[in-house]
Amino acid sequence: MTTRADLAALDQSDPLARKREEFALPEGLIYLDGNSLGALPRAVAGHLERVVREQWGQDLITSWNKHGWIDLASRVGAKIARLVGAEPDEVIAADSTSINLFKVLLAALKLRPERRVIVSDVDNFPTDLYIAQGVRQLLGERYELRLVKKDEVEAALDDQTAVLMLTEVDYRSGWRYDMAAVTRRAQQKGALVIWDLAHSAGAFPVRLDACNADFAVGCGYKYLNGGPGAPAFLYVARRHQGAALPFLTGWMGHRSPFDFDPFYDPAEGVHRMKVGTPPVLSLSALDKALDVFADVDMEEVRRKSLRLTDLFIEGMEPLCAEYGFKLVTPREHERRGSQVAYAHPEGYAIVQALIASGVVGDFRAPDILRFGFTPLYLRYQDVAEAVERLERVMRQGLWKAERFRERAKVT
Amino acid sequence: MTTRADLAALDQSDPLARKREEFALPEGLIYLDGNSLGALPRAVAGHLERVVREQWGQDLITSWNKHGWIDLASRVGAKIARLVGAEPDEVIAADSTSINLFKVLLAALKLRPERRVIVSDVDNFPTDLYIAQGVRQLLGERYELRLVKKDEVEAALDDQTAVLMLTEVDYRSGWRYDMAAVTRRAQQKGALVIWDLAHSAGAFPVRLDACNADFAVGCGYKYLNGGPGAPAFLYVARRHQGAALPFLTGWMGHRSPFDFDPFYDPAEGVHRMKVGTPPVLSLSALDKALDVFADVDMEEVRRKSLRLTDLFIEGMEPLCAEYGFKLVTPREHERRGSQVAYAHPEGYAIVQALIASGVVGDFRAPDILRFGFTPLYLRYQDVAEAVERLERVMRQGLWKAERFRERAKVT
Repeated sequence: MTTRADLAALDQSDPLARKREEFALPEGLIYLDGNSLGALPRAVAGHLERVVREQWGQDLITSWNKHGWIDLASRVGAKIARLVGAEPDEVIAADSTSINLFKVLLAALKLRPERRVIVSDVDNFPTDLYIAQGVRQLLGERYELRLVKKDEVEAALDDQTAVLMLTEVDYRSGWRYDMAAVTRRAQQKGALVIWDLAHSAGAFPVRLDACNADFAVGCGYKYLNGGPGAPAFLYVARRHQGAALPFLTGWMGHRSPFDFDPFYDPAEGVHRMKVGTPPVLSLSALDKALDVFADVDMEEVRRKSLRLTDLFIEGMEPLCAEYGFKLVTPREHERRGSQVAYAHPEGYAIVQALIASGVVGDFRAPDILRFGFTPLYLRYQDVAEAVERLERVMRQGLWKAERFRERAKVT
Repeated sequence: MTTRADLAALDQSDPLARKREEFALPEGLIYLDGNSLGALPRAVAGHLERVVREQWGQDLITSWNKHGWIDLASRVGAKIARLVGAEPDEVIAADSTSINLFKVLLAALKLRPERRVIVSDVDNFPTDLYIAQGVRQLLGERYELRLVKKDEVEAALDDQTAVLMLTEVDYRSGWRYDMAAVTRRAQQKGALVIWDLAHSAGAFPVRLDACNADFAVGCGYKYLNGGPGAPAFLYVARRHQGAALPFLTGWMGHRSPFDFDPFYDPAEGVHRMKVGTPPVLSLSALDKALDVFADVDMEEVRRKSLRLTDLFIEGMEPLCAEYGFKLVTPREHERRGSQVAYAHPEGYAIVQALIASGVVGDFRAPDILRFGFTPLYLRYQDVAEAVERLERVMRQGLWKAERFRERAKVT
């Protein structure tokens, strides 16, 4: 059994411990929800204030050139590229994950015009499934959306499969696909593969290049700490950039937006996937937030993530036995993202009581308690403290008062 | 001829003069580009700092409920509704103008499934045309995009027209459509009408209700002063809200996003047009910026806008005679937005030299000098000063040095 002294020693020797002070975290709070909204990197606040007061307020329209707003989506994309195993010219920051998925899904389907099937995981994050449903409605009933369980994905691929569309890490269970193997199998069937990296980018090393991924999308506001609703990102492998076309054809994806040509002419490469004018304030926050990663070794992040989650799983074992929590996250390292989830029939009330006691996790219907572990700002000692507070919530029955409260809109 | 004393008197008695101090404007600068990027409302900077440091930094994920982030798109939409003659439940703030147009154009086409023609103005803002081209490419060659000159729009409408899609005020010339009359004529032919209010919302009173508009979109960063790339808005007339469906079906447009249902079920009304997680920082800036309008009578804004633009046109007459500027904005009030534009073969160089002398207008290819007049922060005396500085640029030939400079990316 790991003792508090062991954990203090781990914190002492943690090469990532220095990163914690780069984040603004409320005193005494243990934040295990960076997989939903990443904490505020301290440098962002001052940077955004300068963008507002100086760039917008003083330099006004000239900032598009003077402060490089016009290239911001590409510059931010290049910073993200480094974290996901891509080249700088393969990634842009833009729009939301949902909209980016819509763009690459349409582009991918048009690259496989003779095929009619989209395969995905029925437990994929719902917005991914909704986007595929919207695309199917748009393109007509001749398209099929084949939703299967994780262990049925391989069998669901056939010579009619145009696109396999998966989220690498399951948002509820934290289960992680073998990206390289799954991509290879789908490509052997002639399909293209789109990866949603919402729970991957910034959480551990991603190798889109080594996995030979075709397309990817991902989220700016979870492990990338870009702020609430931060712009998302989009990846198109270089080999597809000539042929992949957007159907959301906006002026920022035009070859020469400021020629004001009435006819659309796609920009080179991934840049054609830009659509409208980007939200510069939100994008600037994400831009600055990414600098936190500049001196970070993602392999180190992964090592710490696995230790944190292993320790949490170990610490929770007595609570599982005593209070009926059921681990739904794989113990196997290769199959685990950077979160740990438990099923419990009173999950909602327990999460609320735990938040009231200063440990922020979240609840995912129907019965999942979800705890995200962000190695850049969590300490090993936080793991023990979180387990202790949860033990108190259960022992003292603090969650019972939460059962009858009206549920918040966002759970 | 209007004298400086006349202008000082106009400023003295201007009921909107008090609004100027609510904006942060660089000392000595005359900013005639609020139709491209609105100036910074002072209250936005402090508000955004609180959103970053307190809401994001301290309250973290709980802010979705505690600070109402989850309803922000609707609350901001309701503030915009008041400015465009709509009900609060007919407008949301979301995404970019381009993406919103994509959504409502697809929705409108599906409401006229037996028709195959989209009519628009060949001089419409290019991104609107690009979006229509993308939609046509997606739906197939059986759709026709009919692009005509402004005076040919009526004749282009027939019983095959599904959608008429126009921007009320031409981004180059400032020419303004008669929204009520054009809408009526298109509807008489059985078509639906989409208005782009990019150069209308916040510039003068818009009456989507009285004009019986079907759909509309518009920009948050021009006359609404929401900041660079601020989220755009989208309007669906209540009578269409039951039948109009998005094809960009994201989780924020689901009836119950936090049920995490794998199947899409559209939210009520305009809310189904939300897609992904909104960029809360940019949206919060827009939210606060709109408060500037809370005590503003839009009829008063229009009166001042017409006086400002009349005075500028009058002041420019000697320069037209002497230096060859050609007015392209209608003198007729009913046909004018809140900008004045001139054609000049050396337009680009002249605009650059004028900016160097402290008057910010902009250039639109091939030869248009464009000056936006924002009644909330411009003074009557600014008009005379702008004309004087332009006169000096021409008289002293200051623009000649600009001819040989490399053009900036954004012009």
